Order: sequence, then structure tokens, then C-alpha cells
Amino acid sequence: MKLYDLDVSGNCYKVRLFASLAGIKLDIIPVDFSSGAHKRSPLSDLNPLHQLPILEDGSHVLRDSQAILVYLAGAHGGLAWWPDHPYGQADIVQWLAFAGNEVQHSLSAARLVKKFGYPLDHSAALTQAASVLSVLEAHLEKHDWLAIGRPSIADCAVYPYVVLAPEGGVDLEKYVNVARWMKRVEALPGYLPKP
Amino acid sequence: MKLYDLDVSGNCYKVRLFASLAGIKLDIIPVDFSSGAHKRSPLSDLNPLHQLPILEDGSHVLRDSQAILVYLAGAHGGLAWWPDHPYGQADIVQWLAFAGNEVQHSLSAARLVKKFGYPLDHSAALTQAASVLSVLEAHLEKHDWLAIGRPSIADCAVYPYVVLAPEGGVDLEKYVNVARWMKRVEALPGYLPKP
Repeated sequence: MKLYDLDVSGNCYKVRLFASLAGIKLDIIPVDFSSGAHKRSPLSDLNPLHQLPILEDGSHVLRDSQAILVYLAGAHGGLAWWPDHPYGQADIVQWLAFAGNEVQHSLSAARLVKKFGYPLDHSAALTQAASVLSVLEAHLEKHDWLAIGRPSIADCAVYPYVVLAPEGGVDLEKYVNVARWMKRVEALPGYLPKP
Repeated sequence: MKLYDLDVSGNCYKVRLFASLAGIKLDIIPVDFSSGAHKRSPLSDLNPLHQLPILEDGSHVLRDSQAILVYLAGAHGGLAWWPDHPYGQADIVQWLAFAGNEVQHSLSAARLVKKFGYPLDHSAALTQAASVLSVLEAHLEKHDWLAIGRPSIADCAVYPYVVLAPEGGVDLEKYVNVARWMKRVEALPGYLPKP
């Protein structure tokens, strides 16, 4: 299985982190992002959204880190990470959606400005980041893991842009339950540190 | 099953549309959005993100329209709409992610400005809408349905904000493959027209 990858991308890190935790072997193919290789053929044929990561498993091609997590967990990770019952799957999907939308447009956006100079509204991103972190903090006060009562791909989807948030100027200090959850993630066998 | 609902919301329409197509009975509970009922207890306890829809099925509570579609299809819709094989599920999830992020921040954002007066950047939303529609147009040139070669919850997640896009000042006329796909959705037994 090939993962078209960008080392500093939190979205790519989601996939590498989960593969490491679940013991799934990936053939990591670094993409020359700065020269725009993701916007040209052959990568633009694999993902017309011009985003990374992209997973290629034989004839199966997938974009979107959340979708890739669902595939890797379902096909190669076993039921521990992605159960086969509908409420468990939906419980996870609501956190995948949170990772792909709320987290992306707050914690990740703030980092894109500070670390990579993207022309986004940093102040708006910080305001949204506080709201996102408050939701996480309240949830993690009552739960050890984001979904299904155990580690799942939900944690792998949300953790990367939280642990990378200080690179965007986001102060995590007051979120004590978030900090405890990060330590639990980091203690899992096979944990892969942030890029 | 209770669906806490807002009639004009495209996200709520995703769920009502799928339930109608799949013959799933929902107890629709209209929420007084203009008075902020979604931001107060008891709804804010069910969804700390203060968004609609919310699904309540006994002790199971779910936020996020995409997660609700996964649950309804998995628990009550049968394998036609949400298969049990990992690549099919991931193929659908990449379109659910597209609905929850790219479509939301383009077609839906443009409508929020034009129809409801939200203080978002309408011009940026229109630019992104053109990009989103181009991706859809190219995909639907080669596929009748968004995922798994047949109607699925992927179509139910993306269709609502496409059919509602003209309310945001988005012109759909040049997207002929998108128009044909919309007609296919509208010809499905149990189709529920837009609000």
C-alpha cells in the first residue's frame, strides 16, 4: 500500500500514526509539495482536490485522511479500531467530521498561518480553536477516549492537530483533560511522535 | 427516533431525504432556532457544538448529519446504502468528508450569506463553489453516483446543498453532469423535495 505523504502535514500524520499503532505497513512516498507535485498528473488524477494524503492499495485509491483511516482500520486494523456495529461507527464518524471540519478550520488553520504563512485569518482561527478545545475538554472530562469507550480512529483523527496546535500559537495549558488524553494516546503501544 | 430539526437547514434535509428514500420513520421535532433553543439546555447537552440536526434513538445520541446518515443506514437502512466492506465504506466516507467540509464552506456558506445574512465572505464562497462543482462535474461525467456504483448516503450528503445552491447566488447551469445526477436522485422512489 502506497501513502503519498507530506511529512509536516497533520492530515498525513493521522494516517502514519494509526498505521503505526495498528501495525500496518505502508510504503511512504514523499511528495514534493513545494513544487506543486500534488496539483499535477499523476497525483491530480488520484485526487482532484489536490490534497494529501492519498492512499493507493492496488486498484483502490482514496483521498481524505478520515476516509483512509476508515479503510485501513476496516481492511487491516481489525474491529478494535473500527467496530462493525452502526452506533459505534457513527460515534466515530461524528469525531471524524469534527476533525475534518471544526479542527481543520481552527487549530490547523492557525498553524497554516504561523508556520507556513498561509493568508488566513489567524485571529478568527484562534477564536474557533478555543471553542474546539472547550468542546474537547468537556468531553474528555467524562471520557478517556473520544468514541466507543476505547482508542479508535477517532483519536487518531483528532490528536495530530491538537498536539501540533502550539505551532499555530495556540496555548494548550489550561486544557488539563485534553493534556491527560494526549498522554494516554502517547502511551499506546506503537505510538508515533509528531513530525 | 427523534430528529431535532430545522426545516430550512440543508444539513437537516440530508437526514430527512435519506430517511424518506430508505423508508425510515423519524419523529421530527422542529427546533426554535431563531430564539437560540439549540444553544440552551436540553439541546446544548445533546450537542455541545450547538448545531442541528441531532438524532436521539433511545440512549443513542448523535450530532453531525454525516454521522447520523451512517447510523441510520447501518442500523435501519440495510446494506444497499452503507455496505459492510471497508473500501465501500471508505469510498462513501470520502464524499461525506467532502459534504461536511468543502461543500459546507462553499455552496452552503454562499447560501448562509444570501438567504440568512451571515457575515461570511460571499465572493470567497463563490470561488470555492466553482471549484467544488468542477470536481463534482468531472466525477459525474464518469459515474452515475458519487460512491460504490449505486445510490448511497454519499449522494444524500452532497445533494442538498447542491440543489439549494441557487439560493446562495450560485449558477448551476453549466454543470450538465451535475444536473443529470440531480435528476437521478430526484427519480429515486421516496424522494423528498428540497425545503
